Amino acid sequence: MSKITSLVTGGAGFIGSHVVKHCLAMGHEVVVLDDLSGGFEDHIPAGAIFIQGSVSDDQLVTSLFEEYRFQYVYHLAAYAAEGLSHFIRRFNYNNNLIGSINLINESIKHKVKCFVFTSSIAVYGAGQLPMREEMVPMPEDPYGVSKFAVELDLKAAHEMFGLNYVVFRPHNVYGENQNIGDKYRNVIGIFMNQIMQGQQLTIFGDGEQTRAFSFIDDVAIPIANSVNIPAAYNEVFNIGADKPYTVNELAKVVGACFGVTPNIKYLAARNEVMHAYSDHTKAHSVFGEGSGVSLQEGIARMAEWAKEVGARKSKEFENIEIYEKLPQGWERKQPQAEGVPA
Amino acid sequence: MSKITSLVTGGAGFIGSHVVKHCLAMGHEVVVLDDLSGGFEDHIPAGAIFIQGSVSDDQLVTSLFEEYRFQYVYHLAAYAAEGLSHFIRRFNYNNNLIGSINLINESIKHKVKCFVFTSSIAVYGAGQLPMREEMVPMPEDPYGVSKFAVELDLKAAHEMFGLNYVVFRPHNVYGENQNIGDKYRNVIGIFMNQIMQGQQLTIFGDGEQTRAFSFIDDVAIPIANSVNIPAAYNEVFNIGADKPYTVNELAKVVGACFGVTPNIKYLAARNEVMHAYSDHTKAHSVFGEGSGVSLQEGIARMAEWAKEVGARKSKEFENIEIYEKLPQGWERKQPQAEGVPA
Repeated sequence: MSKITSLVTGGAGFIGSHVVKHCLAMGHEVVVLDDLSGGFEDHIPAGAIFIQGSVSDDQLVTSLFEEYRFQYVYHLAAYAAEGLSHFIRRFNYNNNLIGSINLINESIKHKVKCFVFTSSIAVYGAGQLPMREEMVPMPEDPYGVSKFAVELDLKAAHEMFGLNYVVFRPHNVYGENQNIGDKYRNVIGIFMNQIMQGQQLTIFGDGEQTRAFSFIDDVAIPIANSVNIPAAYNEVFNIGADKPYTVNELAKVVGACFGVTPNIKYLAARNEVMHAYSDHTKAHSVFGEGSGVSLQEGIARMAEWAKEVGARKSKEFENIEIYEKLPQGWERKQPQAEGVPA
Repeated sequence: MSKITSLVTGGAGFIGSHVVKHCLAMGHEVVVLDDLSGGFEDHIPAGAIFIQGSVSDDQLVTSLFEEYRFQYVYHLAAYAAEGLSHFIRRFNYNNNLIGSINLINESIKHKVKCFVFTSSIAVYGAGQLPMREEMVPMPEDPYGVSKFAVELDLKAAHEMFGLNYVVFRPHNVYGENQNIGDKYRNVIGIFMNQIMQGQQLTIFGDGEQTRAFSFIDDVAIPIANSVNIPAAYNEVFNIGADKPYTVNELAKVVGACFGVTPNIKYLAARNEVMHAYSDHTKAHSVFGEGSGVSLQEGIARMAEWAKEVGARKSKEFENIEIYEKLPQGWERKQPQAEGVPA
């Protein structure tokens, strides 16, 4: 039997690099497509083929499908800074929707056996809690809208062309290989980066907002395995941890792993939901129970890794489209109209 | 008081050209942005400023907003061939979603007073009938997904930045200025074009599918007026006719206007909903009752116009992305890989 060949987009990124690892362990030949906008080449597990480029480059995507004839596509590439998406609408839809459509088009044409898509709990909007898969999504920001649009397009592609898919809606994932130098997202990474630089920890609002922080193994392993489980096909799954913590509680746990008491700077609240946690009954029934790694244990493991790699400098997002109402700490000077155009 | 300046995208198109006419009658200065992909320059009412270009050209959109400082934006530009959207996914989202986002971005930045968007009943999917605004949309094809994504993005833009919008979901609109040379959509125009060329009338399936065909005045007048009605702001409205007809009945009405008994060629059914009609209680309560023009009367008026302009040759859509399952009559030869790349 010839080897199974899989495409992992965003395979140099956080969740993607873990999915690559598990796919290699399952014996797949793995091709990684990543533009390194948020990922790191040295996070790609040895043995994978790396192609540097973007899913929004449709000619590149077409040529990769023609060359490698993928059986499975794991689509994790995205610009996932949800809070920033209000201010970078066009970039968001180009990257997260059009890029996905390029992959769906080719997956239809090349009769890919299963298209695994990482959506987000952002599709739910501020609905009732816990979020359940049978709830009607009503996303409230451009990031959530783009993810939901891809989910709907996949469903249409399945109905019309028989393309099988699995949709995952993970939330607040953390662990080794996370980009801790991204000031626009991933509160745990931001805290670690701030502690290692001797800075105050910044929190939007009063820190009493809650999230169920999810250890990477509880997300990446089901994603990688899903192609082997027929009961998962053409279904949507919440995936991640059950227990919510406040951001203030989180700050204490992260501080403890670095032997410090967190020194917190509270910023103006931004436009975000106060509480978010999901029901995972459906995922557990199909993929089994999770790793059982607690927040304390998972954060300790990530902290060990973060201490090794050290603090990272955060990149500014260069192409803000709307400056009005940008949250505190994200402001950039609006370019002046005068002078030579870029 | 200085004059109100409005942008009408797709103003050379069918519904757009009527909206321009009504806006001019309301005393607006009107700028039309249209790429003439489906519209005709000679359909633009005299007195409007015409800019040829696409809403997906973000630099052009930006420069227009800077030059004209629009109070109102009527966004009607779209590639609206719903049935074809399965096969031109990327084009659909680029044109219908990214183009809309360019306009929303600039409308936020320039504090436009109201953004009027023509969505579609395609957002509902095959739900219960009649379709009502409070039903949860669940679009089933890329065209419907793109329209729904724009609706959701407008809602997010309103919540975050205070941009006011009015969303219309029209259906099966017909009348003067319709592009009767588009073989991918508008069954009434297709029938008229076929009759005037002495061809058989083509119907997908058995012709017993029903639609409520809507006379243009019942759609374009509320759209144009909506910016003056505060109760319409940040609301969604079904708009159009109430009474559904089968496509077979329609063929007879159209035939009668040309003095012929329709000679029908039934093609293989395509993937479309069997029945579609909307409830308009909400629109009537805000915009008043419609024109009362019957299907027979409205089609007779359109037929008089069509006889004047004559038959039109249908353009082939040039950039089909997926050839599998293209409906009968829409087939094009798939380009061969050999030879010189384009």
